[in-house]
Amino acid sequence: MHIDILTLFPEMIDPIFQSSILKKAQEKQKFSYNLVNFRDYTTNKHNKVDDYPYGGGAGMVLTPQPVFDAVESVKQEKATKPRVVLMCPQGETFNQKKAEELAKEDHLIFICGHYEGYDERIREHLITDEVSIGDYVLTGGELGAMVVVDSVVRLLPEVLGNEESAPQDSFSTGLLEHPHYTRPADFRGMKVPDILLSGDHAKIDQWRKKESLKRTYQRRKELLDHHQLSPAEKEMLDELKDEL
Amino acid sequence: MHIDILTLFPEMIDPIFQSSILKKAQEKQKFSYNLVNFRDYTTNKHNKVDDYPYGGGAGMVLTPQPVFDAVESVKQEKATKPRVVLMCPQGETFNQKKAEELAKEDHLIFICGHYEGYDERIREHLITDEVSIGDYVLTGGELGAMVVVDSVVRLLPEVLGNEESAPQDSFSTGLLEHPHYTRPADFRGMKVPDILLSGDHAKIDQWRKKESLKRTYQRRKELLDHHQLSPAEKEMLDELKDEL
Repeated sequence: MHIDILTLFPEMIDPIFQSSILKKAQEKQKFSYNLVNFRDYTTNKHNKVDDYPYGGGAGMVLTPQPVFDAVESVKQEKATKPRVVLMCPQGETFNQKKAEELAKEDHLIFICGHYEGYDERIREHLITDEVSIGDYVLTGGELGAMVVVDSVVRLLPEVLGNEESAPQDSFSTGLLEHPHYTRPADFRGMKVPDILLSGDHAKIDQWRKKESLKRTYQRRKELLDHHQLSPAEKEMLDELKDEL
Repeated sequence: MHIDILTLFPEMIDPIFQSSILKKAQEKQKFSYNLVNFRDYTTNKHNKVDDYPYGGGAGMVLTPQPVFDAVESVKQEKATKPRVVLMCPQGETFNQKKAEELAKEDHLIFICGHYEGYDERIREHLITDEVSIGDYVLTGGELGAMVVVDSVVRLLPEVLGNEESAPQDSFSTGLLEHPHYTRPADFRGMKVPDILLSGDHAKIDQWRKKESLKRTYQRRKELLDHHQLSPAEKEMLDELKDEL
């Protein structure tokens, strides 16, 4: 997979590509990336990439020219049919299913605005996807793009080792994770539940399933609507509802 | 405001603090930050901060000792009553309301795990908040913490200039933004809607309101449930439903 990120702040995100899983994935040649400062593509004499909005109002708007030219240049270079993803609050809310979908592509291009709005013609004629990572206001698209990149790259085949892959259960099982404990068994008087020290693996499994259901029920009830409960889980949940 | 981030990957996020609004906010002395590598606090001979889970299973779990000691050291230094925020998939889903709530605090501490799960005693006895930025799997808490920091710091008084603050409408009005256009009026044959060039500000306002409602209705219907529609907006929405 190749990833291009169009941004006015490349220095802000480059170190993220040099860390942890993203770094390892490049060393394993599972993906490559390129940071494209689309200011380099503007034909404006003063190097500007934004302008006042038609119809008045506060704030600036990214002009179509540098963004179109940067995307087209990057497309030409690779001769692929990339997904062109606009990071914006109006986009579809990103989730694990979308990450899995993007992980199947060969080439992703992300467009990151910063303060400014996007000229609507970018939205209408240049991109394939609009993505928002959540319902909060951020200064630019950079952090959002890196969130998407991290979640996508870790899904590429052979990127994760065993140690790194285990805790991803959360959204793949559709339930929140059960509690974890490690040494010491007694930390300042705070103790690990006896059952986890019992060595009885059937009971431990049972306890974990129940805690996972309990946590999901207490914190994110709506996740249970999208989750196919097994008969055993259903019974467990009914018990839980009586207890809580 | 002071922000401490407990992480094993400080080099990954430091450049984000040195860019854009976060940098300007520090120059204006609106907030300060400190990156704390909690590995420095471990009493383990081999410098380890994680261990195998009690009860078996794949993956590693952060031991309580270095995390407790790091948080306590940071608290003591500042003599404040900080919010201690654990970044994790099991947390409450972050949104703009939560950002506004955190922006009222003097001191925030973020705990970022990486691959590992957290020992449950951290959750039970050390933290005040558990936050997830969305329903997707990330490698670590670092990007999530930076998303929260960016959205919170931009809400601090006098941090944003006029130019930067305008496009934040999206989640403060409760509706998605209307389309924006800037020069040129004709870009490769793609034209700006005539109404925006008309100079008729009443009509432009009307058009923008309608486009904002339309986009919200088409993309994020559920946002309309939480939004108090004015009688004029209600009428507009009914018209729209007939048109679409």
